[in-house]
Amino acid sequence: MYPRTFTYGLFARENKQGYLKICVNIGGKTVLIVKKFGGSSLANKERVFNVANRILEDYIAGHEVIVVLSAQGDTTDELLDKAKEINPNPSRREMDMLLATGEQQSVSLMAMAIESLGYPAISLNAYQVPMVTTSTYGNARLKKIDSDRIRTELDRKNIVIVTGFQGINRYEDITTLGRGGSDTTAVALAAALDADKCEIFTDVNGVYTADPRVVKNARKLDEITYDEMLELASLGAKVLHNRSVELAKKYGVELVVRSSLTREEGTIVKEECRMEKMLVSGVASDKDVARIAVIGIKDEPGKAFMLFSLLAKKGINVDIILQSVGREGSKDISFTLPTSDLKEAVSIIEGNLDRISGSKVEVDEDVAKVSLVGAGMASNAGVASTMFEALYDADINIKMISTSEIKISVLVDEHDVEAAMNAIHEQFKLAASK
Amino acid sequence: MYPRTFTYGLFARENKQGYLKICVNIGGKTVLIVKKFGGSSLANKERVFNVANRILEDYIAGHEVIVVLSAQGDTTDELLDKAKEINPNPSRREMDMLLATGEQQSVSLMAMAIESLGYPAISLNAYQVPMVTTSTYGNARLKKIDSDRIRTELDRKNIVIVTGFQGINRYEDITTLGRGGSDTTAVALAAALDADKCEIFTDVNGVYTADPRVVKNARKLDEITYDEMLELASLGAKVLHNRSVELAKKYGVELVVRSSLTREEGTIVKEECRMEKMLVSGVASDKDVARIAVIGIKDEPGKAFMLFSLLAKKGINVDIILQSVGREGSKDISFTLPTSDLKEAVSIIEGNLDRISGSKVEVDEDVAKVSLVGAGMASNAGVASTMFEALYDADINIKMISTSEIKISVLVDEHDVEAAMNAIHEQFKLAASK
Repeated sequence: MYPRTFTYGLFARENKQGYLKICVNIGGKTVLIVKKFGGSSLANKERVFNVANRILEDYIAGHEVIVVLSAQGDTTDELLDKAKEINPNPSRREMDMLLATGEQQSVSLMAMAIESLGYPAISLNAYQVPMVTTSTYGNARLKKIDSDRIRTELDRKNIVIVTGFQGINRYEDITTLGRGGSDTTAVALAAALDADKCEIFTDVNGVYTADPRVVKNARKLDEITYDEMLELASLGAKVLHNRSVELAKKYGVELVVRSSLTREEGTIVKEECRMEKMLVSGVASDKDVARIAVIGIKDEPGKAFMLFSLLAKKGINVDIILQSVGREGSKDISFTLPTSDLKEAVSIIEGNLDRISGSKVEVDEDVAKVSLVGAGMASNAGVASTMFEALYDADINIKMISTSEIKISVLVDEHDVEAAMNAIHEQFKLAASK
Repeated sequence: MYPRTFTYGLFARENKQGYLKICVNIGGKTVLIVKKFGGSSLANKERVFNVANRILEDYIAGHEVIVVLSAQGDTTDELLDKAKEINPNPSRREMDMLLATGEQQSVSLMAMAIESLGYPAISLNAYQVPMVTTSTYGNARLKKIDSDRIRTELDRKNIVIVTGFQGINRYEDITTLGRGGSDTTAVALAAALDADKCEIFTDVNGVYTADPRVVKNARKLDEITYDEMLELASLGAKVLHNRSVELAKKYGVELVVRSSLTREEGTIVKEECRMEKMLVSGVASDKDVARIAVIGIKDEPGKAFMLFSLLAKKGINVDIILQSVGREGSKDISFTLPTSDLKEAVSIIEGNLDRISGSKVEVDEDVAKVSLVGAGMASNAGVASTMFEALYDADINIKMISTSEIKISVLVDEHDVEAAMNAIHEQFKLAASK
């Protein structure tokens, strides 16, 4: 077993030029930290060295550091363009082979940057770790991470820099993890190596009570639970990808979301928050929503099931569902879904209108979802009515409602989104108290 | 055992769109061909598709094709610049990690190009093959190529596209093979998979009797032996790197050097040439040569040995050596070496002048080597005197002479090089007979 605790107090660390650096190991405890940086944090030489210095702070303080990097700046988009020029519809296997080079360039350049500052670093790609995934090119899931190689490099006092976003499948071919892939890599490494924390560096200071571009006095949260973060992420808060939060929750990895550009503390994402459960923690919105209504469905058992199973077979997820009370032997079913799935869903339903026994399909694209999230909501009555009151006062019409243990979502007209968010944010006094 | 012979005559091959292509398999024999293309042949979309079509010609004719690619166009130089910006003196391991991405991009893009033309292709990098090398980053030697994966992909009727220039060492870290690395990869794969031939595509039509930029009526050779090619390559003909020719000779791989831009047949490099041994096959020159003379060495045993062992210890190779006849108890030793080693060699000798017992060191940088190569030379007297006669007629002074079984080299003034090459070329009637 590797000792997690160094000698108390001062210790010496030798850099490549042979200078001894005297480091203060506060409290004498060595912790293992995974730090993930996105592509915009690595876009040019200055930013690469900014990140290198952030990494070295922890290393010099006596900690073990694993770094996960995305591809630099616009590299991934440039590679996608290059591929499209050659083949507008390339195989996903070859696409992953191509895209994976972006992260490999990032990690080797970062190792060179850290070496040039006089400290030892080593870059590793997915097969060198190895990080094994499912075979689904372009959207693979991590299955197994071997910690031996990374552990060996940490024991050699190397800063270990790992490619995010990529893996290898059982054929030893390169896969990529899809959207949010590098966050997922970071959390998975933190879980596999039993890291003390996993810091996700981004271009915002943390998780806010609402999008600061929409709600001017939105407040940064010090802490948030995994569940709240999951609701916020899936509702379009765009700070962390859901998969990484789910993984963090599953393995109890303490996540920190913070900025690579400032020294601010960021937001800690964990199972239980230290302070009293917040009633509500944030307001989120999602404009990528459309509503479909199927009118005049026969009021017989099995019709709703048939409708949604047809959509499920095509991998279309529906969100809020509303069914009108049956009247005169027929009913209407309306539901929301991502705008990107709208066209396919309509064509499926219209092609099966007889089987579903509906009379027509209506579509509304100018809608958006506004949601209030809070772990304390479940044990507090009246949250929903307070929210509805705020919307009523702001003269905003609610089209559909959906609730969960820690979330209330409403569907409103798209042009009402900003007014709705501000009204709810104010009603629940979420603003920074300045 | 995989059958090397298909059904005789016509056969059908299905492309990805499901069309059957009727292919004529002339003679009914399936051969395995390794084709290597350099970076300039891949510099843009048009060239990528030009190469894709060259590859498909053989595949459609019913053959098995393995393709080895370098990085596209200036990719390697761009990556070197990127690294230099971050760290002027990066570790070789990280440099190899960075540079290897260039070839990985080439091979995946080529697979996409071939797929877009409707044929099956798969790209493989060094660890997927795997190609195992020594651990020397930046200048590794291939040790072992596993043929299983490539064989499997060929059996699946895939065109297999492999990254040139790279390997993995026993730590599973990425290495690169140094100068001429992709040629070496191609020959090594041809040897490992027992290929019928290995075609090296370049920007010239083949091997010439002399550099066509210097000798206007230089003639392209149809055939040349490995030994002749080795002498020409090491003498600066720059068509094939020596390592790849040595490897081809060792494993009896039939090499073909030809242009990726024209349909010309190219030059075959093999053990024995079909036709009667040519008396001489080519003239080469090398301006990267300097001469050192150590004057007044005591005429005692062991002094020459001491001089050259000092240089050998520092890895400095000397080429032509000339020792004057001892007179009045002292002698002079002069020798040639690559210009890049001159400075170090002089400082070594001057630092040890007492031990060598020399009185002073003289240096001449304005010299060049002109060489005549031919496998038939050994059994034909008079080649040397004919060569010297040509130089005498052209009023060119010979400063040193060196001969081997199949080569005669002379050292001349650098400004005489072109005149010397033309004079020799004409004397031996090497010109194209047009």
